[in-house]
Amino acid sequence: MPTTLHMTGTLDPRDGWTAGAECTIAKSVELLSTRSAFLLMREAFYGATRFEEFVRRAELTEATASARLHELVEHGLLELEPYREPGQRTRHRYVLTEKGADLFPVIVSLMEWGNRWLTDSGGPAELLHRGCGAAVGTKLVCGHGHDVELADLDLAPTPRANRFTS
Amino acid sequence: MPTTLHMTGTLDPRDGWTAGAECTIAKSVELLSTRSAFLLMREAFYGATRFEEFVRRAELTEATASARLHELVEHGLLELEPYREPGQRTRHRYVLTEKGADLFPVIVSLMEWGNRWLTDSGGPAELLHRGCGAAVGTKLVCGHGHDVELADLDLAPTPRANRFTS
Repeated sequence: MPTTLHMTGTLDPRDGWTAGAECTIAKSVELLSTRSAFLLMREAFYGATRFEEFVRRAELTEATASARLHELVEHGLLELEPYREPGQRTRHRYVLTEKGADLFPVIVSLMEWGNRWLTDSGGPAELLHRGCGAAVGTKLVCGHGHDVELADLDLAPTPRANRFTS
Repeated sequence: MPTTLHMTGTLDPRDGWTAGAECTIAKSVELLSTRSAFLLMREAFYGATRFEEFVRRAELTEATASARLHELVEHGLLELEPYREPGQRTRHRYVLTEKGADLFPVIVSLMEWGNRWLTDSGGPAELLHRGCGAAVGTKLVCGHGHDVELADLDLAPTPRANRFTS
């Protein structure tokens, strides 16, 4: 049997509760549940800001890109910023908010996993640390700086947690 | 303007290519594109192995759970393992494969992001390092052990990369 998470506090025993609507994994996935949302966020991290750029680079229809970008703005992951080129009217571009930029580890961990498991070539692109050239990925660490693995983890109710359904 | 990724090698300039079908972020998302797939993987990390458990804990219909578990087995994230309780016929349970277990950082980064941005309470549950009690999250590090931020990153074509479409 592979390792799974260890439950503590009111989460033990596991049979006493289900995650239900409070689960923040489910909440995050719902917000990002479409493939197009991920592709648009990918392009935002790649530097796209203009609508035409998102459409072309994420290979979406204008209708899909428009609907999805609108949702991403509504959820506060992107925001519209006015800009004006000389002699042109004011236009808007999409830029990452702090909330959106904070999603970067999710994108990196998906890329890392895909590069490792879904291609034979190691994937088309990789992230490198500019300072030293080494490949970059995500790692599990605790607030005291220890490296941790799944086997070292407790899933614990947060102090201010709303009750799980049971 | 917030920071975005810096492109190097054949990925610079960004206008010379699009990610297309080779993108391993897109491949990963396609494989996991349904909310139910994430919830089932969450429950696998929480220790669920039996079909009834997945249905009850992920709050899915039997039909949805069955179809999705079948896909997760087909894609190699879960595998069926025979087991037999005394006096009962042989049954099968779902266990994480190495490929499936390696998805843990994706789940953790989604939970971390959701706890930070989608609740006021900090979320219902958190991951703690059993050794020291500190909260656990994902961090970007390079192969030489340096902490890195988005601004320190280059997106580079992999040596064996298939060509991006342009």
